[in-house]
Amino acid sequence: MSRARYVAGLRAVEQLLTTRPGDVRAIYAEYRTANPRVEAVIARAGELDIEVRPANRARLAQLSGETRHQGVVAEIRRSTVLDEAGLRTLVEERLTADGGPPLLLLVLDGVQDPHNLGACLRTAEAAGADAVVAPRHGAAGLGPAVSKVAAGAAEVLPFASVPNVARVLGWLREYGVRIVGTSDAARESLFEADLGGPLAFVMGEEHRGLRRSVQERCDILVRLPMHGTVQSLNLSVACGICLYEAVRQRAAAAAAPG
Amino acid sequence: MSRARYVAGLRAVEQLLTTRPGDVRAIYAEYRTANPRVEAVIARAGELDIEVRPANRARLAQLSGETRHQGVVAEIRRSTVLDEAGLRTLVEERLTADGGPPLLLLVLDGVQDPHNLGACLRTAEAAGADAVVAPRHGAAGLGPAVSKVAAGAAEVLPFASVPNVARVLGWLREYGVRIVGTSDAARESLFEADLGGPLAFVMGEEHRGLRRSVQERCDILVRLPMHGTVQSLNLSVACGICLYEAVRQRAAAAAAPG
Repeated sequence: MSRARYVAGLRAVEQLLTTRPGDVRAIYAEYRTANPRVEAVIARAGELDIEVRPANRARLAQLSGETRHQGVVAEIRRSTVLDEAGLRTLVEERLTADGGPPLLLLVLDGVQDPHNLGACLRTAEAAGADAVVAPRHGAAGLGPAVSKVAAGAAEVLPFASVPNVARVLGWLREYGVRIVGTSDAARESLFEADLGGPLAFVMGEEHRGLRRSVQERCDILVRLPMHGTVQSLNLSVACGICLYEAVRQRAAAAAAPG
Repeated sequence: MSRARYVAGLRAVEQLLTTRPGDVRAIYAEYRTANPRVEAVIARAGELDIEVRPANRARLAQLSGETRHQGVVAEIRRSTVLDEAGLRTLVEERLTADGGPPLLLLVLDGVQDPHNLGACLRTAEAAGADAVVAPRHGAAGLGPAVSKVAAGAAEVLPFASVPNVARVLGWLREYGVRIVGTSDAARESLFEADLGGPLAFVMGEEHRGLRRSVQERCDILVRLPMHGTVQSLNLSVACGICLYEAVRQRAAAAAAPG
C-alpha cells in the first residue's frame, strides 16, 4: 500500500498548513530562495510551532520523489489511507450519525494515471465526499505526484485501498448504500437518477470502463449525455459532473419546503 | 494564429475517420508495425478513399510536432479556427436559426496549459457547445498536443482566436447572449443560475481567475459550491460541471410539459 508521507509543492503545502496544520510533522524548505511564497511557508510554519528543517534541492527531491517540489516539502504525521476494515468503520459511523448530508463515496475501479487520480481526489474532496475507494493492485496509488495534483485533498480525504472492489460494493449494498455505476452504454441519464440518499459512484478504468464483475454490483448504470462527436469525457471531468450532480440534488432537496 | 493541420495519435485519428472523414486529406502511417489499430486505421482510410502515405517515426514526429504519435498522423483539409468576424457570423446564424438548443459558448480567458485546453475542447464538444473562444495572445492555442487530449474535438469544434475577449463579450451581450462568469468569490451558486437561453460561460486563467476587464462584462458571476478544504477545482473539471449544468437545465426545460 503506498502512503504519501511527504507532500511536495507550494500549493499543496500551503493548503496543508491552512487546513490541517496539526497533521504536519515538519516542513523541509530551501532557505536561500528568492521565492516569497517559500518564505511565507517558513514563516507560517514558525507561527504554528511546526519544525522547519533547511534542505537543498537534491534533498527535497529525495524525500518527496518529486523534482518539481518548488522548494518546499511537508512531512505528514499520519496517513489518510484506510484498509477495508477502516472503510467499513467509517461507513458505519457515517450511516448511524445524526445530521449531515447523506454518505457520498467515489469508487475508482482501476484508474491508471496518477494525474487523473489526483484530479479525482481534489474534486471528491471539494464535493464533500466521505472517502475515495480504489483497488490495492493494478491501479494508481497515493504518492507525491498524486498529492501535488490533488492540491491538498490527498492529505485530508480518506483513501481506502482495498483488495477487491466488487466485494466492497457488495457490503455497501447490504448497508443500503445505492451503487451508481457510469457507463457509456447505460440507458438512463445521470440527470434522471435519484442521487439523494447514501450513495457510491463507481467509475471504471480510463479506456476500458467498468469491469463486468463491478457492473453487476451496481444498482443502476447511468451515462453522461454526449451531444457532439467525441465518445467520452476525461475521467476526472466525468467524476466532477457526477459528484456535483449529487451536490446539486442534495442542496435542492435541503432547500425545498417541507 | 496557430492552426492544427496535423493530428497525431490513434484515438484522435480514429475519431476523425469516424466522425469527419471528409475533412481528412491524408493519413501518414508506419506500415511495418505490430499494432493492429494502426493497421485498422490504414484499412479504414483505404475504404474511405483517403490517401495513405507511409512514413517512419521521425517523419511522423516532424509532421505533427508530437513524439507520442503512436504511428499515425492525419492531415486535415481545413481548419476550425475562426477569427472574430467568423465568430460573429457563426453567432448571428445560430441566433437567427429556427429550432435547436440555445447558443452555448465557452470563453477561456487565458488558459495556459495545452492539456487543460484540450480537455476543455473535448468537454465543450461533448456538451454540444457551438464554439470555444480564446485570446490570440498570452494563452495556449491549438496544436498537436491539444488535439491529442481533445480526442477529436479540436478538429470539429469551431475555435475562435480573438484579439480582445472583453470586446467579444461586449457584442455578445448586445446580441442578447447571457454572459456567465465563474469566480470563487461569487455569491450565487452555479446551480441557482438560469442557464436556459443563449449563453456564454467565461472561465479565467488557471491560477489568477477572471481579469477585472472581463468580469465587468459578465451579466452574472457564479461559483461552484466547495464542501471541503481544497479551494478550487481543476479548470477542465470546473468547465465540465458548468457546461453540463446548462445541458441538464435545457434537457429538463425541453421535457417539461407545456
